[in-house]
Amino acid sequence: MTDKNRTKVEIYGQQYTIIGTDPASHIHLVASLVDKKMHEMRSMNASLDTNNLAVLTAVNAVHDYLILKEQFELLEKQLQHLKE
Amino acid sequence: MTDKNRTKVEIYGQQYTIIGTDPASHIHLVASLVDKKMHEMRSMNASLDTNNLAVLTAVNAVHDYLILKEQFELLEKQLQHLKE
Repeated sequence: MTDKNRTKVEIYGQQYTIIGTDPASHIHLVASLVDKKMHEMRSMNASLDTNNLAVLTAVNAVHDYLILKEQFELLEKQLQHLKE
Repeated sequence: MTDKNRTKVEIYGQQYTIIGTDPASHIHLVASLVDKKMHEMRSMNASLDTNNLAVLTAVNAVHDYLILKEQFELLEKQLQHLKE
């Protein structure tokens, strides 16, 4: 059995229980970033409802992830090159 | 004026228009990943409504981003060390 935590967070005014192996402090950080992103998105698109806001926040986060992944792979290649 | 594209995508059965400078192919990739993540999340938590699903998908994506960021910073340090 893995040692799973249940962490309660609030995102955009709603309560969620996140279950996972990460420490609560990390989950709180992630939740606060998502909350912040949703508020930023809302300030740019006042007509969006919470559902669309959440989907577009997810789009934004995955987009940022892919950009970072490209940079990561570039760095890995540089490192490999220097080690050779 | 920046050269912005309007790309129509479908995520979890709903249409969205994404406005940005990225090529349409990249936006379609991001949208399909979010759609996939939402379906995966749904298969694990059948009771979640679309809104909660989208928020938890965003949490998931930000979590993955932070993990990758830590690895990225570690790699940067290694690279710096090798260059010295």
